[in-house]
Amino acid sequence: MTESVNSDDLNQRANEKAARRKEARDRMMADKTQEKGLIIVHTGKGKGKSTAAFGMVLRCIGHGMKVGVVQFIKGKWDTGERTVLERFPDQIEIKALGEGFTWETQDRARDIAFARAGWEEGKRMIADESFDFVLLDEINIALRYDYLPIDEVLDFLKAKRPGLHVCLTGRNAKEELIAIADLVTEMEMVKHPFRDGVKAQAGVEF
Amino acid sequence: MTESVNSDDLNQRANEKAARRKEARDRMMADKTQEKGLIIVHTGKGKGKSTAAFGMVLRCIGHGMKVGVVQFIKGKWDTGERTVLERFPDQIEIKALGEGFTWETQDRARDIAFARAGWEEGKRMIADESFDFVLLDEINIALRYDYLPIDEVLDFLKAKRPGLHVCLTGRNAKEELIAIADLVTEMEMVKHPFRDGVKAQAGVEF
Repeated sequence: MTESVNSDDLNQRANEKAARRKEARDRMMADKTQEKGLIIVHTGKGKGKSTAAFGMVLRCIGHGMKVGVVQFIKGKWDTGERTVLERFPDQIEIKALGEGFTWETQDRARDIAFARAGWEEGKRMIADESFDFVLLDEINIALRYDYLPIDEVLDFLKAKRPGLHVCLTGRNAKEELIAIADLVTEMEMVKHPFRDGVKAQAGVEF
Repeated sequence: MTESVNSDDLNQRANEKAARRKEARDRMMADKTQEKGLIIVHTGKGKGKSTAAFGMVLRCIGHGMKVGVVQFIKGKWDTGERTVLERFPDQIEIKALGEGFTWETQDRARDIAFARAGWEEGKRMIADESFDFVLLDEINIALRYDYLPIDEVLDFLKAKRPGLHVCLTGRNAKEELIAIADLVTEMEMVKHPFRDGVKAQAGVEF
Protein backbone atom coordinates (compact mmCIF):
# COMPACT_ATOMS: atom_id res chain seq x y z
CA MET A 1 0.00 0.00 0.00
CA THR A 2 1.39 3.39 -0.92
CA GLU A 3 -1.33 5.41 0.79
CA SER A 4 -0.57 8.61 2.65
CA VAL A 5 -0.60 9.06 6.41
CA ASN A 6 -4.18 10.29 6.09
CA SER A 7 -5.45 6.92 4.92
CA ASP A 8 -7.26 6.26 8.21
CA ASP A 9 -9.25 9.47 7.76
CA LEU A 10 -9.91 8.67 4.13
CA ASN A 11 -11.13 5.19 5.00
CA GLN A 12 -13.31 6.57 7.78
CA ARG A 13 -15.02 9.06 5.46
CA ALA A 14 -15.42 6.45 2.73
CA ASN A 15 -16.96 4.00 5.18
CA GLU A 16 -19.49 6.57 6.42
CA LYS A 17 -20.46 7.40 2.86
CA ALA A 18 -20.81 3.70 2.05
CA ALA A 19 -23.06 3.22 5.09
CA ARG A 20 -25.38 5.99 3.86
CA ARG A 21 -25.39 4.49 0.36
CA LYS A 22 -26.25 1.05 1.69
CA GLU A 23 -29.07 2.49 3.80
CA ALA A 24 -30.55 4.27 0.77
CA ARG A 25 -30.26 1.15 -1.33
CA ASP A 26 -31.81 -1.11 1.31
CA ARG A 27 -34.73 1.34 1.53
CA MET A 28 -35.08 1.32 -2.26
CA MET A 29 -35.04 -2.49 -2.43
CA ALA A 30 -37.42 -3.07 0.49
CA ASP A 31 -40.54 -2.70 -1.66
CA LYS A 32 -39.20 -4.79 -4.55
CA THR A 33 -41.05 -7.94 -3.60
CA GLN A 34 -42.99 -8.83 -6.71
CA GLU A 35 -42.02 -11.73 -8.97
CA LYS A 36 -43.28 -11.70 -12.49
CA GLY A 37 -42.33 -12.91 -15.91
CA LEU A 38 -40.79 -10.04 -17.81
CA ILE A 39 -40.92 -8.85 -21.39
CA ILE A 40 -37.28 -7.95 -22.01
CA VAL A 41 -35.99 -6.02 -25.03
CA HIS A 42 -32.35 -5.62 -26.10
CA THR A 43 -31.97 -3.07 -28.85
CA GLY A 44 -29.55 -0.42 -30.14
CA LYS A 45 -26.72 -0.43 -32.65
CA GLY A 46 -24.05 -1.72 -30.30
CA LYS A 47 -22.89 -5.25 -29.68
CA GLY A 48 -24.19 -7.43 -26.88
CA LYS A 49 -27.90 -7.66 -27.63
CA SER A 50 -27.94 -11.37 -28.48
CA THR A 51 -24.86 -12.04 -26.38
CA ALA A 52 -26.54 -10.73 -23.22
CA ALA A 53 -29.68 -12.68 -24.11
CA PHE A 54 -27.61 -15.87 -24.33
CA GLY A 55 -25.97 -14.87 -21.04
CA MET A 56 -29.47 -14.94 -19.50
CA VAL A 57 -30.15 -18.29 -21.14
CA LEU A 58 -26.96 -19.59 -19.52
CA ARG A 59 -28.16 -18.40 -16.11
CA CYS A 60 -31.58 -19.91 -16.58
CA ILE A 61 -30.02 -23.27 -17.44
CA GLY A 62 -27.86 -22.99 -14.32
CA HIS A 63 -31.01 -22.44 -12.26
CA GLY A 64 -32.67 -25.54 -13.69
CA MET A 65 -35.15 -23.57 -15.79
CA LYS A 66 -36.32 -24.60 -19.27
CA VAL A 67 -35.50 -22.31 -22.18
CA GLY A 68 -36.76 -21.98 -25.73
CA VAL A 69 -34.79 -20.09 -28.39
CA VAL A 70 -35.88 -19.03 -31.86
CA GLN A 71 -33.11 -17.54 -33.96
CA PHE A 72 -34.79 -15.43 -36.61
CA ILE A 73 -31.50 -14.56 -38.30
CA LYS A 74 -28.28 -16.34 -38.06
CA GLY A 75 -26.65 -16.69 -41.42
CA LYS A 76 -23.87 -19.12 -41.96
CA TRP A 77 -21.88 -18.44 -38.80
CA ASP A 78 -21.35 -21.32 -36.48
CA THR A 79 -22.29 -20.25 -32.98
CA GLY A 80 -20.20 -21.26 -30.01
CA GLU A 81 -23.09 -20.86 -27.60
CA ARG A 82 -25.05 -23.62 -29.27
CA THR A 83 -22.20 -26.09 -28.78
CA VAL A 84 -22.39 -25.61 -25.01
CA LEU A 85 -26.14 -25.22 -24.64
CA GLU A 86 -26.91 -28.33 -26.64
CA ARG A 87 -25.27 -30.32 -23.86
CA PHE A 88 -28.39 -29.61 -21.82
CA PRO A 89 -30.99 -31.16 -24.13
CA ASP A 90 -33.65 -31.49 -21.42
CA GLN A 91 -33.48 -27.80 -20.63
CA ILE A 92 -33.22 -26.10 -23.98
CA GLU A 93 -34.88 -26.20 -27.36
CA ILE A 94 -33.27 -24.13 -30.14
CA LYS A 95 -34.92 -23.43 -33.48
CA ALA A 96 -32.70 -21.72 -36.03
CA LEU A 97 -34.59 -20.30 -38.98
CA GLY A 98 -33.09 -19.74 -42.37
CA GLU A 99 -30.16 -17.60 -43.30
CA GLY A 100 -29.53 -14.01 -42.36
CA PHE A 101 -32.20 -12.11 -44.21
CA THR A 102 -31.05 -8.54 -43.80
CA TRP A 103 -27.67 -8.84 -45.43
CA GLU A 104 -27.31 -12.12 -47.20
CA THR A 105 -30.65 -12.85 -48.82
CA GLN A 106 -32.45 -10.89 -51.46
CA ASP A 107 -35.77 -12.63 -51.56
CA ARG A 108 -38.43 -10.82 -49.59
CA ALA A 109 -41.14 -13.44 -50.06
CA ARG A 110 -38.85 -16.12 -48.68
CA ASP A 111 -37.82 -13.86 -45.76
CA ILE A 112 -41.47 -13.34 -44.85
CA ALA A 113 -42.08 -17.08 -44.90
CA PHE A 114 -39.05 -17.64 -42.62
CA ALA A 115 -40.18 -14.91 -40.22
CA ARG A 116 -43.65 -16.45 -40.08
CA ALA A 117 -42.23 -19.92 -39.42
CA GLY A 118 -40.05 -18.52 -36.61
CA TRP A 119 -42.95 -16.71 -35.00
CA GLU A 120 -45.08 -19.86 -35.10
CA GLU A 121 -42.29 -21.69 -33.22
CA GLY A 122 -42.09 -18.81 -30.75
CA LYS A 123 -45.85 -18.85 -30.17
CA ARG A 124 -45.75 -22.58 -29.52
CA MET A 125 -42.98 -22.15 -26.93
CA ILE A 126 -44.71 -19.20 -25.26
CA ALA A 127 -47.91 -21.24 -24.98
CA ASP A 128 -46.11 -24.36 -23.71
CA GLU A 129 -46.16 -24.28 -19.90
CA SER A 130 -42.94 -26.27 -19.60
CA PHE A 131 -40.90 -23.21 -20.70
CA ASP A 132 -39.69 -20.58 -18.21
CA PHE A 133 -37.81 -18.31 -20.63
CA VAL A 134 -38.27 -17.80 -24.38
CA LEU A 135 -35.72 -15.91 -26.47
CA LEU A 136 -36.87 -14.49 -29.80
CA ASP A 137 -33.42 -13.63 -31.11
CA GLU A 138 -33.34 -10.87 -33.75
CA ILE A 139 -37.13 -10.80 -34.10
CA ASN A 140 -36.90 -6.98 -34.11
CA ILE A 141 -35.46 -7.13 -37.62
CA ALA A 142 -38.48 -9.08 -38.85
CA LEU A 143 -40.80 -6.62 -37.12
CA ARG A 144 -38.96 -3.62 -38.46
CA TYR A 145 -39.38 -4.73 -42.07
CA ASP A 146 -43.02 -5.63 -41.37
CA TYR A 147 -42.33 -9.27 -42.18
CA LEU A 148 -44.49 -9.96 -39.12
CA PRO A 149 -47.47 -7.83 -38.08
CA ILE A 150 -46.50 -6.01 -34.90
CA ASP A 151 -50.06 -6.07 -33.56
CA GLU A 152 -50.20 -9.84 -33.72
CA VAL A 153 -46.93 -10.14 -31.80
CA LEU A 154 -47.96 -7.58 -29.18
CA ASP A 155 -51.35 -9.20 -28.61
CA PHE A 156 -49.73 -12.59 -28.11
CA LEU A 157 -47.09 -11.21 -25.72
CA LYS A 158 -49.67 -9.33 -23.67
CA ALA A 159 -51.61 -12.57 -23.17
CA LYS A 160 -48.60 -14.66 -22.08
CA ARG A 161 -48.49 -16.60 -18.80
CA PRO A 162 -47.57 -14.25 -15.92
CA GLY A 163 -44.55 -16.35 -14.86
CA LEU A 164 -42.89 -16.58 -18.29
CA HIS A 165 -39.97 -14.37 -19.32
CA VAL A 166 -39.75 -13.46 -23.01
CA CYS A 167 -36.67 -11.71 -24.40
CA LEU A 168 -36.76 -10.02 -27.83
CA THR A 169 -33.55 -8.80 -29.42
CA GLY A 170 -32.44 -6.82 -32.45
CA ARG A 171 -31.80 -3.23 -33.40
CA ASN A 172 -34.60 -0.79 -34.18
CA ALA A 173 -37.09 -2.23 -31.68
CA LYS A 174 -40.54 -0.86 -32.46
CA GLU A 175 -41.87 1.81 -30.12
CA GLU A 176 -45.03 -0.21 -29.53
CA LEU A 177 -42.92 -3.12 -28.28
CA ILE A 178 -40.90 -0.89 -25.96
CA ALA A 179 -44.18 0.48 -24.61
CA ILE A 180 -45.35 -2.94 -23.37
CA ALA A 181 -41.91 -4.19 -22.23
CA ASP A 182 -40.78 -4.36 -18.60
CA LEU A 183 -37.02 -4.20 -19.09
CA VAL A 184 -35.45 -2.44 -22.05
CA THR A 185 -31.73 -1.98 -22.62
CA GLU A 186 -30.19 -0.10 -25.49
CA MET A 187 -26.70 -1.25 -26.46
CA GLU A 188 -24.81 1.72 -27.87
CA MET A 189 -21.70 1.34 -29.93
CA VAL A 190 -18.94 3.55 -28.53
CA LYS A 191 -16.06 1.98 -30.43
CA HIS A 192 -15.89 -0.95 -32.84
CA PRO A 193 -12.80 -2.73 -34.16
CA PHE A 194 -14.30 -3.23 -37.67
CA ARG A 195 -13.37 0.39 -38.18
CA ASP A 196 -9.74 -0.61 -37.87
CA GLY A 197 -9.92 -3.57 -40.24
CA VAL A 198 -10.35 -6.28 -37.63
CA LYS A 199 -12.59 -9.12 -38.74
CA ALA A 200 -15.25 -10.98 -36.76
CA GLN A 201 -13.62 -13.44 -34.39
CA ALA A 202 -14.58 -16.62 -32.53
CA GLY A 203 -15.77 -16.00 -29.00
CA VAL A 204 -16.25 -12.28 -29.47
CA GLU A 205 -18.57 -12.08 -32.47
CA PHE A 206 -19.88 -15.61 -32.89
CA MET B 1 -50.37 -14.40 -46.79
CA THR B 2 -52.71 -11.41 -46.79
CA GLU B 3 -50.59 -9.25 -49.08
CA SER B 4 -52.11 -7.03 -51.76
CA VAL B 5 -52.02 -7.67 -55.51
CA ASN B 6 -48.95 -5.44 -55.67
CA SER B 7 -46.88 -7.80 -53.59
CA ASP B 8 -44.81 -8.88 -56.62
CA ASP B 9 -43.81 -5.26 -57.20
CA LEU B 10 -43.13 -4.77 -53.52
CA ASN B 11 -40.96 -7.88 -53.37
CA GLN B 12 -39.11 -6.84 -56.52
CA ARG B 13 -38.25 -3.41 -55.10
CA ALA B 14 -37.29 -4.89 -51.73
CA ASN B 15 -35.03 -7.44 -53.41
CA GLU B 16 -33.26 -4.78 -55.46
CA LYS B 17 -32.70 -2.71 -52.34
CA ALA B 18 -31.37 -5.77 -50.50
CA ALA B 19 -28.97 -6.49 -53.36
CA ARG B 20 -27.54 -2.96 -53.11
CA ARG B 21 -27.27 -3.32 -49.32
CA LYS B 22 -25.46 -6.64 -49.61
CA GLU B 23 -23.05 -5.18 -52.15
CA ALA B 24 -22.22 -2.26 -49.85
CA ARG B 25 -21.74 -4.59 -46.91
CA ASP B 26 -19.55 -7.01 -48.86
CA ARG B 27 -17.40 -4.06 -49.90
CA MET B 28 -17.19 -2.88 -46.27
CA MET B 29 -16.22 -6.35 -44.98
CA ALA B 30 -13.66 -7.08 -47.70
CA ASP B 31 -10.85 -5.29 -45.88
CA LYS B 32 -11.68 -6.73 -42.45
CA THR B 33 -9.03 -9.40 -42.51
CA GLN B 34 -7.06 -8.80 -39.36
CA GLU B 35 -7.29 -11.07 -36.32
CA LYS B 36 -6.24 -9.67 -33.01
CA GLY B 37 -6.98 -10.04 -29.36
CA LEU B 38 -9.29 -7.25 -28.31
CA ILE B 39 -9.63 -5.08 -25.26
CA ILE B 40 -13.39 -5.05 -24.77
CA VAL B 41 -15.27 -2.73 -22.40
CA HIS B 42 -18.92 -3.03 -21.35
CA THR B 43 -20.08 0.02 -19.45
CA GLY B 44 -23.17 2.18 -18.89
CA LYS B 45 -25.99 2.16 -16.36
CA GLY B 46 -28.14 -0.42 -18.12
CA LYS B 47 -28.29 -4.16 -17.63
CA GLY B 48 -26.35 -6.63 -19.71
CA LYS B 49 -22.73 -5.64 -19.09
CA SER B 50 -21.73 -8.78 -17.20
CA THR B 51 -24.44 -10.83 -18.87
CA ALA B 52 -23.05 -10.11 -22.34
CA ALA B 53 -19.54 -10.81 -21.06
CA PHE B 54 -20.68 -14.22 -19.82
CA GLY B 55 -22.39 -14.72 -23.18
CA MET B 56 -18.96 -14.28 -24.79
CA VAL B 57 -17.46 -16.69 -22.26
CA LEU B 58 -20.12 -19.21 -23.29
CA ARG B 59 -19.16 -18.80 -26.96
CA CYS B 60 -15.46 -19.15 -26.21
CA ILE B 61 -16.11 -22.40 -24.33
CA GLY B 62 -18.13 -23.61 -27.32
CA HIS B 63 -15.16 -22.87 -29.57
CA GLY B 64 -12.79 -24.88 -27.37
CA MET B 65 -11.01 -21.78 -26.04
CA LYS B 66 -9.76 -21.40 -22.46
CA VAL B 67 -11.27 -18.64 -20.32
CA GLY B 68 -10.30 -16.95 -17.07
CA VAL B 69 -12.80 -14.97 -15.01
CA VAL B 70 -12.18 -12.70 -12.05
CA GLN B 71 -15.33 -11.46 -10.37
CA PHE B 72 -14.39 -8.30 -8.52
CA ILE B 73 -17.84 -7.89 -7.01
CA LYS B 74 -20.46 -10.46 -6.58
CA GLY B 75 -22.07 -10.26 -3.20
CA LYS B 76 -24.05 -13.11 -1.86
CA TRP B 77 -26.02 -13.97 -4.96
CA ASP B 78 -25.66 -17.41 -6.35
CA THR B 79 -24.98 -17.16 -10.06
CA GLY B 80 -26.61 -19.48 -12.52
CA GLU B 81 -23.84 -19.04 -15.06
CA ARG B 82 -21.26 -20.58 -12.72
CA THR B 83 -23.34 -23.73 -12.35
CA VAL B 84 -23.13 -24.35 -16.09
CA LEU B 85 -19.60 -23.09 -16.72
CA GLU B 86 -18.12 -25.16 -13.91
CA ARG B 87 -19.04 -28.23 -15.93
CA PHE B 88 -16.13 -27.33 -18.23
CA PRO B 89 -13.33 -27.40 -15.67
CA ASP B 90 -10.58 -27.80 -18.28
CA GLN B 91 -11.70 -24.68 -20.11
CA ILE B 92 -12.53 -22.20 -17.39
CA GLU B 93 -11.05 -20.86 -14.20
CA ILE B 94 -13.25 -18.57 -12.10
CA LYS B 95 -11.98 -16.51 -9.19
CA ALA B 96 -14.67 -14.79 -7.15
CA LEU B 97 -13.34 -12.13 -4.82
CA GLY B 98 -15.04 -11.04 -1.67
CA GLU B 99 -18.47 -9.57 -1.27
CA GLY B 100 -20.05 -6.75 -3.21
CA PHE B 101 -18.06 -3.75 -2.10
CA THR B 102 -20.10 -0.91 -3.51
CA TRP B 103 -23.36 -1.58 -1.73
CA GLU B 104 -22.89 -4.16 0.95
CA THR B 105 -19.54 -3.46 2.57
CA GLN B 106 -18.42 -0.42 4.43
CA ASP B 107 -14.77 -1.08 4.89
CA ARG B 108 -12.62 0.71 2.35
CA ALA B 109 -9.33 -0.80 3.45
CA ARG B 110 -10.74 -4.30 3.04
CA ASP B 111 -12.22 -3.37 -0.37
CA ILE B 112 -8.82 -2.18 -1.56
CA ALA B 113 -7.25 -5.44 -0.45
CA PHE B 114 -9.91 -7.44 -2.32
CA ALA B 115 -9.46 -5.32 -5.46
CA ARG B 116 -5.71 -5.86 -5.31
CA ALA B 117 -6.13 -9.61 -4.85
CA GLY B 118 -8.47 -9.71 -7.85
CA TRP B 119 -6.10 -7.75 -10.03
CA GLU B 120 -3.21 -10.06 -9.10
CA GLU B 121 -5.33 -13.03 -10.25
CA GLY B 122 -6.21 -11.17 -13.44
CA LYS B 123 -2.55 -10.37 -14.14
CA ARG B 124 -1.63 -14.01 -13.66
CA MET B 125 -4.30 -15.12 -16.17
CA ILE B 126 -3.36 -12.43 -18.69
CA ALA B 127 0.28 -13.53 -18.50
CA ASP B 128 -0.57 -17.25 -18.70
CA GLU B 129 -0.40 -18.28 -22.35
CA SER B 130 -2.94 -21.06 -21.93
CA PHE B 131 -5.76 -18.49 -21.70
CA ASP B 132 -7.55 -17.11 -24.80
CA PHE B 133 -10.05 -14.82 -23.08
CA VAL B 134 -9.91 -13.13 -19.67
CA LEU B 135 -12.96 -11.46 -18.12
CA LEU B 136 -12.36 -8.87 -15.39
CA ASP B 137 -15.95 -8.62 -14.25
CA GLU B 138 -16.86 -5.32 -12.53
CA ILE B 139 -13.26 -4.15 -12.38
CA ASN B 140 -14.50 -0.72 -13.49
CA ILE B 141 -15.99 -0.20 -10.02
CA ALA B 142 -12.61 -0.81 -8.41
CA LEU B 143 -10.96 1.56 -10.88
CA ARG B 144 -13.59 4.21 -10.40
CA TYR B 145 -13.01 4.35 -6.65
CA ASP B 146 -9.25 4.28 -7.20
CA TYR B 147 -8.97 0.99 -5.34
CA LEU B 148 -6.59 0.06 -8.15
CA PRO B 149 -4.24 2.50 -9.89
CA ILE B 150 -5.54 2.98 -13.43
CA ASP B 151 -2.04 3.47 -14.85
CA GLU B 152 -0.90 0.10 -13.58
CA VAL B 153 -3.89 -1.62 -15.19
CA LEU B 154 -3.49 0.25 -18.49
CA ASP B 155 0.22 -0.51 -18.70
CA PHE B 156 -0.40 -4.19 -18.11
CA LEU B 157 -3.22 -4.35 -20.69
CA LYS B 158 -1.16 -2.52 -23.31
CA ALA B 159 1.59 -5.13 -22.91
CA LYS B 160 -0.70 -8.17 -23.21
CA ARG B 161 -0.13 -10.94 -25.78
CA PRO B 162 -1.55 -9.87 -29.16
CA GLY B 163 -3.86 -12.91 -29.45
CA LEU B 164 -5.53 -12.56 -26.04
CA HIS B 165 -8.98 -11.00 -25.59
CA VAL B 166 -9.59 -9.15 -22.31
CA CYS B 167 -13.06 -7.96 -21.36
CA LEU B 168 -13.57 -5.38 -18.59
CA THR B 169 -17.05 -4.65 -17.27
CA GLY B 170 -18.79 -2.23 -14.92
CA ARG B 171 -20.39 1.18 -15.06
CA ASN B 172 -18.36 4.38 -15.15
CA ALA B 173 -15.49 2.98 -17.21
CA LYS B 174 -12.56 5.39 -17.01
CA GLU B 175 -11.91 7.52 -20.09
CA GLU B 176 -8.30 6.34 -20.18
CA LEU B 177 -9.51 2.74 -20.43
CA ILE B 178 -11.95 3.56 -23.23
CA ALA B 179 -9.12 5.29 -25.04
CA ILE B 180 -7.03 2.11 -25.28
CA ALA B 181 -9.96 -0.29 -25.84
CA ASP B 182 -10.84 -1.82 -29.23
CA LEU B 183 -14.54 -2.52 -28.67
CA VAL B 184 -16.63 -0.46 -26.28
CA THR B 185 -20.35 -0.85 -25.72
CA GLU B 186 -22.46 1.30 -23.44
CA MET B 187 -25.54 -0.41 -22.05
CA GLU B 188 -28.22 2.21 -21.51
CA MET B 189 -31.20 1.64 -19.29
CA VAL B 190 -34.39 2.51 -21.16
CA LYS B 191 -36.83 0.86 -18.77
CA HIS B 192 -36.29 -1.15 -15.59
CA PRO B 193 -38.85 -3.23 -13.67
CA PHE B 194 -37.42 -2.28 -10.25
CA ARG B 195 -39.32 0.94 -10.79
CA ASP B 196 -42.55 -1.04 -10.63
CA GLY B 197 -41.69 -3.00 -7.49
CA VAL B 198 -40.42 -6.14 -9.23
CA LYS B 199 -37.55 -7.85 -7.43
CA ALA B 200 -34.40 -9.40 -8.90
CA GLN B 201 -35.22 -12.79 -10.36
CA ALA B 202 -33.38 -16.00 -11.23
CA GLY B 203 -32.24 -16.14 -14.83
CA VAL B 204 -32.80 -12.47 -15.49
CA GLU B 205 -30.74 -10.78 -12.79
CA PHE B 206 -28.55 -13.55 -11.41
